[in-house]
Amino acid sequence: MKIYFAGSIRGGREDADLYARIIDFLKQYGNVYTEHIGDTSLTDKGDEGLSDRQIYDRDMDWLLKSEVIVAEVTTVSMGVGYEIGRAVASGKRVICLYRPQEGKRLSAMIAGCPDLRLIPYQRPEEAESVLSEIFF
Amino acid sequence: MKIYFAGSIRGGREDADLYARIIDFLKQYGNVYTEHIGDTSLTDKGDEGLSDRQIYDRDMDWLLKSEVIVAEVTTVSMGVGYEIGRAVASGKRVICLYRPQEGKRLSAMIAGCPDLRLIPYQRPEEAESVLSEIFF
Repeated sequence: MKIYFAGSIRGGREDADLYARIIDFLKQYGNVYTEHIGDTSLTDKGDEGLSDRQIYDRDMDWLLKSEVIVAEVTTVSMGVGYEIGRAVASGKRVICLYRPQEGKRLSAMIAGCPDLRLIPYQRPEEAESVLSEIFF
Repeated sequence: MKIYFAGSIRGGREDADLYARIIDFLKQYGNVYTEHIGDTSLTDKGDEGLSDRQIYDRDMDWLLKSEVIVAEVTTVSMGVGYEIGRAVASGKRVICLYRPQEGKRLSAMIAGCPDLRLIPYQRPEEAESVLSEIFF
């Protein structure tokens, strides 16, 4: 199975360790694209040495040939929102992992979208438990 | 002409005055949907009294029946990213207005996308000048 993982890069790297953990977990179920999003040495400057167009073309290619998109949507990110929009428009299975936080609200474009599965969680183990039921 | 305007709500309302100005400007060219995004009394809590699903259904209906999408992408927003993704996937004309800022970088999913027109600007007059050439 081809899985595309989406997490924030230029929107902020606060959750990079968490992304790495989720990607590691997902690897048991298939090939995970955009694995570098969990690379903690990657800064919010993004992929060095590639033009924006090259990054876009590579990521869209990966996204459109994946069967499932898993996005961590807690850190607000324009790119993750874009990728979810493209995935939903393509009729792909989309799973959004979200850690509800006091004083913040998830976009209604994600929270209100009937064409994706939203998984609220706090500890990584909780997200992994639900993912293991989905992918088993 | 039906124009959909996209700007940040839950991602942050710092640019609400600017959104209001752009929407006012766009009105001379057609009907502008999501006009309330420029309402400075609207907080980052978003539309009170509507469920996320109701907001989603209304906004997607507006987006998909619009000919042109104009998005202000300076404030990072998951919802604006989602809407741009849906608009690009639908083959609509998409215009993104962006104010480059020191120490911040626009997502490669927007900056590298060949299917939208990115307009960097600083003063509102500059954006309006380009918009007036596009819509005239």
